[in-house]
Amino acid sequence: MSDQGGPEGLQELFTALNLQEDAPDPCIMVIFGASGDLTKRLLIPSLFNLYCDNLLPDAFAILGMAMDDFSTESFRDRMSEDVRNYSRQDQFDDHAWSVFCDKIHYMQGRFDDAEAFARLKTFLQALDGRYDAGGNILFYMATPPAVFSMISTGLEAVGMNEEHDYWRRIIVEKPFGSDLDSARQLNRQILTYWKESQVYRIDHYLGKETVQNLLAFRFANGMFEPLWNRTHIDHIQITATEQVGVEWRGGYYDKSGVVRDMIQNHLFQMMAYLCMEPPVSFESEAIRNEKFKLLSAVRIMEPEEVRENAVRGQYGEGVKQDGSPAKPYRQEHLVHPDSNTETYAAVKLRIDNWRWHGVPVFLRSGKGLRTKSTEIVVQFRRAPEFTFRGTPAAGQLEANQLIFRIQPNEGIELRFLAKRPGPSMHMRKVNMNFEYDEAFVTHPGTGYETMLYDCMRGDASLFSRSDLVETSWQIVQPILDVWKSEKARDFPNYPFGSWGPKAAFDLPAAAHRRWLARSPKQALSRVPMFEGSGTTMINAFAMMLKPRVYNAGDEIVRLGSVAGELFIIEQGRVEMVDARGWVKGELSDGQVFGELSLLLTKERQATMRALTYCAIYTLDKRDFSKVLMDRPQFAERMMQVARERYHVIVNANELMTGESAKIADK
Amino acid sequence: MSDQGGPEGLQELFTALNLQEDAPDPCIMVIFGASGDLTKRLLIPSLFNLYCDNLLPDAFAILGMAMDDFSTESFRDRMSEDVRNYSRQDQFDDHAWSVFCDKIHYMQGRFDDAEAFARLKTFLQALDGRYDAGGNILFYMATPPAVFSMISTGLEAVGMNEEHDYWRRIIVEKPFGSDLDSARQLNRQILTYWKESQVYRIDHYLGKETVQNLLAFRFANGMFEPLWNRTHIDHIQITATEQVGVEWRGGYYDKSGVVRDMIQNHLFQMMAYLCMEPPVSFESEAIRNEKFKLLSAVRIMEPEEVRENAVRGQYGEGVKQDGSPAKPYRQEHLVHPDSNTETYAAVKLRIDNWRWHGVPVFLRSGKGLRTKSTEIVVQFRRAPEFTFRGTPAAGQLEANQLIFRIQPNEGIELRFLAKRPGPSMHMRKVNMNFEYDEAFVTHPGTGYETMLYDCMRGDASLFSRSDLVETSWQIVQPILDVWKSEKARDFPNYPFGSWGPKAAFDLPAAAHRRWLARSPKQALSRVPMFEGSGTTMINAFAMMLKPRVYNAGDEIVRLGSVAGELFIIEQGRVEMVDARGWVKGELSDGQVFGELSLLLTKERQATMRALTYCAIYTLDKRDFSKVLMDRPQFAERMMQVARERYHVIVNANELMTGESAKIADK
Repeated sequence: MSDQGGPEGLQELFTALNLQEDAPDPCIMVIFGASGDLTKRLLIPSLFNLYCDNLLPDAFAILGMAMDDFSTESFRDRMSEDVRNYSRQDQFDDHAWSVFCDKIHYMQGRFDDAEAFARLKTFLQALDGRYDAGGNILFYMATPPAVFSMISTGLEAVGMNEEHDYWRRIIVEKPFGSDLDSARQLNRQILTYWKESQVYRIDHYLGKETVQNLLAFRFANGMFEPLWNRTHIDHIQITATEQVGVEWRGGYYDKSGVVRDMIQNHLFQMMAYLCMEPPVSFESEAIRNEKFKLLSAVRIMEPEEVRENAVRGQYGEGVKQDGSPAKPYRQEHLVHPDSNTETYAAVKLRIDNWRWHGVPVFLRSGKGLRTKSTEIVVQFRRAPEFTFRGTPAAGQLEANQLIFRIQPNEGIELRFLAKRPGPSMHMRKVNMNFEYDEAFVTHPGTGYETMLYDCMRGDASLFSRSDLVETSWQIVQPILDVWKSEKARDFPNYPFGSWGPKAAFDLPAAAHRRWLARSPKQALSRVPMFEGSGTTMINAFAMMLKPRVYNAGDEIVRLGSVAGELFIIEQGRVEMVDARGWVKGELSDGQVFGELSLLLTKERQATMRALTYCAIYTLDKRDFSKVLMDRPQFAERMMQVARERYHVIVNANELMTGESAKIADK
Repeated sequence: MSDQGGPEGLQELFTALNLQEDAPDPCIMVIFGASGDLTKRLLIPSLFNLYCDNLLPDAFAILGMAMDDFSTESFRDRMSEDVRNYSRQDQFDDHAWSVFCDKIHYMQGRFDDAEAFARLKTFLQALDGRYDAGGNILFYMATPPAVFSMISTGLEAVGMNEEHDYWRRIIVEKPFGSDLDSARQLNRQILTYWKESQVYRIDHYLGKETVQNLLAFRFANGMFEPLWNRTHIDHIQITATEQVGVEWRGGYYDKSGVVRDMIQNHLFQMMAYLCMEPPVSFESEAIRNEKFKLLSAVRIMEPEEVRENAVRGQYGEGVKQDGSPAKPYRQEHLVHPDSNTETYAAVKLRIDNWRWHGVPVFLRSGKGLRTKSTEIVVQFRRAPEFTFRGTPAAGQLEANQLIFRIQPNEGIELRFLAKRPGPSMHMRKVNMNFEYDEAFVTHPGTGYETMLYDCMRGDASLFSRSDLVETSWQIVQPILDVWKSEKARDFPNYPFGSWGPKAAFDLPAAAHRRWLARSPKQALSRVPMFEGSGTTMINAFAMMLKPRVYNAGDEIVRLGSVAGELFIIEQGRVEMVDARGWVKGELSDGQVFGELSLLLTKERQATMRALTYCAIYTLDKRDFSKVLMDRPQFAERMMQVARERYHVIVNANELMTGESAKIADK
């Protein structure tokens, strides 16, 4: 180490460490449509990140091609400017950039101009000689799908699609069709010019860490794979929600919708990695074969089954995160004012194989929602109760949950039951957490780094294959068909910034399951009654909250009914109606009702009716009492609230008797 | 709630909550030997804790009996004074104590005096009438085992051992014999006067939370029990270490030793709860039947197998936690100066049943050790590597570990593998933690609370049964016999304040297993080279350290050998010897050697020889490089140390090549 440990020494060290794996091949990367957004926002920053991590081949160059009038010099200037805006590096390394930037070249040309491809060939031969790239060329189609054929024709005419002792690969961006027919047609087109092994269909979502972590988690740990089947798993939930609306993408989105935009690709990919059989190796074909097998096993719905197993939503007006009003979807730029396009969908799938028979998989995704999060919940079967017969624990058993958080804050959480300290056998759900950024030094990437790196190494594991694409379309096609033919009369059916449509919550409920509550800790911290409860208690309560959604006019509780739940209004307005039908008051965000039923075995004192869409957390009496045993002071505060609201003097002797153990929980 | 939420209201609330479970029966508790230490230190404080938690029956009184000259009044005064010293309550509740104290009574009497028992009967009849205890009496033998018979005779003479529509129970303190014969004799004696169902053999260790949590954890969680067998578990470790020596108990201890004092009872009980089949219910007989079955399945060693499967140690002089010198065991008060008694033992057991065939259980316990800790490690089988063929991960797979920490800081830890963020497939061991005191409001009890509460409820689950006691003795008897007949020539074989004898580390190593490293984080933080590494990195390294013990004169590494480990001296002195046999220097606590082998594939530059007993952590090159990828800066620091010590200029190109993936790990 000549400089005794300076940055050069570290680069060498990295090299040494990375020698353990196949290095990427020398190559030239050609970007068609290099003057567009993708290049400056994602491709160049990602390539530069790879360069800084010493993961690019030494023999490497970039050639941008587009119609715009740039010289290599002016293109480099433009990239130098843009990369500073879009790079996610903490400290931008100017020296490294200036070395990297010398690898970037540009040529002007039209994709329908045969002569341009002849010039391209000459240019590439020169670059190949200069950079010693061994003839390997990676063609990146940063263009709309419509011009794939045109470019491929151009390349074929000059023989640049043919491999000999070097490789030629193309990277194609999604969407890979907009339904089964168009996907088949697109695949046919591409495969006219290229062999399947040359085609890398990129979905940068698969380059994200957690998707790969799923594989690592499942197959590197001896204790999880034995549980990964219908004997031990009750059901699976995959959620990907966004806070933003369609923003400037209305033109594209209104022809697409969330099933095409998210579910058919991202969520299916996560499902495939989570549920597939162990591949025989990490070779890309081995993995893609297993993904294909898994997707092929998903039961295709009959049209009449769609209504039962798929739910759609479209956002109406609402409130953005910053408190400003949000436009309804139908008033977004370039969206049809009577649009039938779904901005939210929830689907229940069945996988017809030995491993997953009888284990429903619930998927949901949407825009204009309250939280941005991507996560997978694997819920195990509940332990049999017999062991605890005769103890309070018998009524307190709950299912274990393994939660993969993908964003925000990538991590893994395990929820299990522990005995409450004390002489009697009471159980409560507790959790343990693993946070990636506490265990590793992470460099948040764009997702493209991994994909580009893999493509240069010839590892297609994370890229989609034509049969995978078509099978995914096959699964959603009945849903798309039914929804196209039947106009959604209730659109818009959820406010911007809410939890999504009520029907999405009814979907798992019909199978006696329930979506995991999202971010209930924040909800609790907004409720005055829980003020000063402390982290331990808030955490404990948060794991017990159950989400429910009501539409305007729904009766939430009926006067005189006997029930055992507290209601926490996360969002919406509720009116309180007495026995004479008189409205006695109104409650909204952050307020609670039903606290009496936690304290007494007593009939409801009022009817509560939703005045608007309402997102509500409920807390069972049974669950409540589990935490209360630790903190009886809290019961006093609830009694206080009850006294003030209902002028009821609570007799503690009536508290918590009887029924608490009776309420069954799936 | 008359006072609207004051302490009375809370008491009622507690009552209401605890109605869900059988309340303890009304009763009088008689303490024989009430003037002794146990009563003031543990029994009265525990009963008072139960009272404060409203877990005592309303109809309840205490009658102390001993030879000492107290009146009820003076005995109460004495207890009032003592309870303030021994109570672990945060805020001593004077009002509650004064109410509770009125339930305490005293009578003077000798246990060999028949007339005293007649008086006792009269006294108890009066108390029963006054407190409305329904005739139930709990006799607590806070006396040496030698007087059990005497007291039982006295009680039998006045018919107080007989049950009718009321119960009569006795609580007997351990030791339950000192070997198989004496245990059988003691059981015979006791069962002359009492039915087995009346006898509660108390081991307050079983009243500790975690022992019961083991049951809760195993049987309340659907995802663990399916893994709990030889198909998925590789081996089990149970450790209970103490920092203190025998202190004032030398007279007792020298006749006993750690096998009798800890292993035969505490460790076997933990093993039984951890490994038994699911009981058909939580009824005490159901649980004790399963424990009996499990212990009966433990293979009894032949005398010639003892040497291979059991290891003993005795501490010599050393250093206490506070840095002051510690006496060797043989110089402790009332210990024989040539004592053969073991203060440390490690045992490897086999359980001959379908569930555990082929899964070794390693137990160890000792006094005068570096750390005080009780923990159970369940190590799962490693995942098969085939999935990761061709990736760096194939050489990085490690077994999952589930760790139950019992003290200090009760909790559960799960160690598993996660993918290192980045484009290539590297694995590293990470962990997630559950801490009881973060999830629950815990009131640290003495262990007696639960036991007394259960006894008053007639729940004998946590108490030992005569067949359990005898089976436990059966298992250890061959070890006791061999060790008695063969004097340990190497005693003392570990210094006070160390990790215990070298042989204890060889025991699992012979089966290609290894004790989990204790508190390596603290060890790392003492090593200057790791200074400023940050929590993330220290945690990562800590999980990779492996403990090794050497005796004075042992060669630790040999000059010229090729190896790949760093050595961190936790304790002891090591000399460095060059090719000519010259001593070049000496290293001790907190220093490291072997760092060159992490950086280079190079022969050892010196022979390292233990000058004293040495406790050493080792860090594999392969493990080191896993962390290093996150923090290459750290490699520079190691190169610096190497340069200074060996004047070697490290060439980074030689770093980390080759062999790292070859070192196998069990």
